[in-house]
Amino acid sequence: MTEPAYVAVDWGTSSFRLWLIDRAGDVLAERRSGEGMLAAAKAGFAAVLQSHLAAVEAPDHLPVLVCGMAGARTGWVEAGYVDTPAPLSAILQQAARVPGEVRDIRILPGIAQRDPNTPDVMRGEETQLLGALGLDAPGEALVCMPGTHSKWVRVNNGTVEQFSTFMTGELFSVVSRETILSLAVAGADEAEDVASFKAAVIAAFEAPAYAANLLFRARSRQLLFGGTPAAARETVSGTLIGIELAAGLSRTVPKAGITLVASGRLAMLYRLAFDALSVSAAPLEADEAVRRGLSMAAAAIWTR
Amino acid sequence: MTEPAYVAVDWGTSSFRLWLIDRAGDVLAERRSGEGMLAAAKAGFAAVLQSHLAAVEAPDHLPVLVCGMAGARTGWVEAGYVDTPAPLSAILQQAARVPGEVRDIRILPGIAQRDPNTPDVMRGEETQLLGALGLDAPGEALVCMPGTHSKWVRVNNGTVEQFSTFMTGELFSVVSRETILSLAVAGADEAEDVASFKAAVIAAFEAPAYAANLLFRARSRQLLFGGTPAAARETVSGTLIGIELAAGLSRTVPKAGITLVASGRLAMLYRLAFDALSVSAAPLEADEAVRRGLSMAAAAIWTR
Repeated sequence: MTEPAYVAVDWGTSSFRLWLIDRAGDVLAERRSGEGMLAAAKAGFAAVLQSHLAAVEAPDHLPVLVCGMAGARTGWVEAGYVDTPAPLSAILQQAARVPGEVRDIRILPGIAQRDPNTPDVMRGEETQLLGALGLDAPGEALVCMPGTHSKWVRVNNGTVEQFSTFMTGELFSVVSRETILSLAVAGADEAEDVASFKAAVIAAFEAPAYAANLLFRARSRQLLFGGTPAAARETVSGTLIGIELAAGLSRTVPKAGITLVASGRLAMLYRLAFDALSVSAAPLEADEAVRRGLSMAAAAIWTR
Repeated sequence: MTEPAYVAVDWGTSSFRLWLIDRAGDVLAERRSGEGMLAAAKAGFAAVLQSHLAAVEAPDHLPVLVCGMAGARTGWVEAGYVDTPAPLSAILQQAARVPGEVRDIRILPGIAQRDPNTPDVMRGEETQLLGALGLDAPGEALVCMPGTHSKWVRVNNGTVEQFSTFMTGELFSVVSRETILSLAVAGADEAEDVASFKAAVIAAFEAPAYAANLLFRARSRQLLFGGTPAAARETVSGTLIGIELAAGLSRTVPKAGITLVASGRLAMLYRLAFDALSVSAAPLEADEAVRRGLSMAAAAIWTR
């Protein structure tokens, strides 16, 4: 086994992932848990991290690079923001060192868009972007990063110029669980209803103003014509993703096309959505992107 | 005191209102309670109604006319639907009699739009429409009825031709209470922030596809620039009402203009929203409309 060079940690609101990485960038060990920012704020960030470091037998001197919500004001150590236009290289330069620790632990900052008309923030996605595009990728990129809070990011020659957050994932969660639509969705199995999903994407893309009406139709349709809970769920999902795409695609799409950074079921749904609109998007695994971004940053910080 | 001629009941999902009315249509007594369909389904519809009838000393022979969710499948007695195109006169003709009661108790049906592309249902609003427009109002009307599930209804010569439900009120409720925006909205006092509200209405009206982004800005703006919880709340409210208006106003507005059937704070917000868009809407008190609709129907059923 090769020697570990550093530890990379993606510390989100509700999830914790750690990788032990060697000098070549290869993964030697991995840890995943639900000890995200919310849980760690109670248990103690240092203690949570230490338990995972011990589990992978990380040597005491090994440096740790963290991205995500651990760097928020309500996290471990506030890592601040790099303001747009934000060169991706500035992110690793502004990593915040965790004080009082013998080990060199640094948390990467987020990116802030301090425009009073389009204020926005990201924390964690900047590291995915780094992994997806590299430090100084030439040309223009439009990156779609689905999630609880989806991001659409325009990057020009390695600099984040503009981005927008859409509450798509969180809206899906509360709308399907906490509104009258929960009655229509209840009991939906895992099987997808691709036809219902694509139809909803197209309807919402074509008439985004009708979003709150298209959502209600998931219930009306079931009441008047029957239909499965899965069909209702995909209508809700497709409607919310459809209006997000209507906004994201209303901007100029660069020649290089769209990069879709996503994992699992979300990656599948967004691929279907782009497909329904006959738009091509190059998929990239989000887990892979964040690990690669952390590795690039760690290599630049500690092995230059 | 004049003799009561009938009892009118507006029995919604979470509210119960009863009026004792004389032959001239004047209100002799009124009752309001939280014993809506959900509460009454447990306590028993007949028992809830009887307690209020006793409280206003309604004679045993007095007939009762009910509208609203008491007529839903999950209510007291299913009152079905009149299908679009639905003459308002058909509603009172299809009132469902409650079986097993000595007293003549009838529940008005809702209206269903059985179009597979735009399925929709209303229950309770048809009675407000009757009260707002009358049985055979000549000409075309576009009626905006804000609420948990807002309705936009097109009525032509006394016939409901087409309508759309928007989950605006319910979305406001879950978005401001159950998402990350609850942090931005927490502690908002009753004072309105009219400027934030109108700005959000206009922004959403102009770019409805950005709805899920405009909502998130309520949080980003506070994080980066400060701002009151009230401003965040009005941004959420204005964004959701703004996209509803973008859809509602995308149709042809009849010469007679728009009728706004609403009460209290909701009436105030929608008046501000129409005002922000320089669109005029004739306001009509929703409470008054439903009582008038029930009176008209009761008079037609029992005093013809």
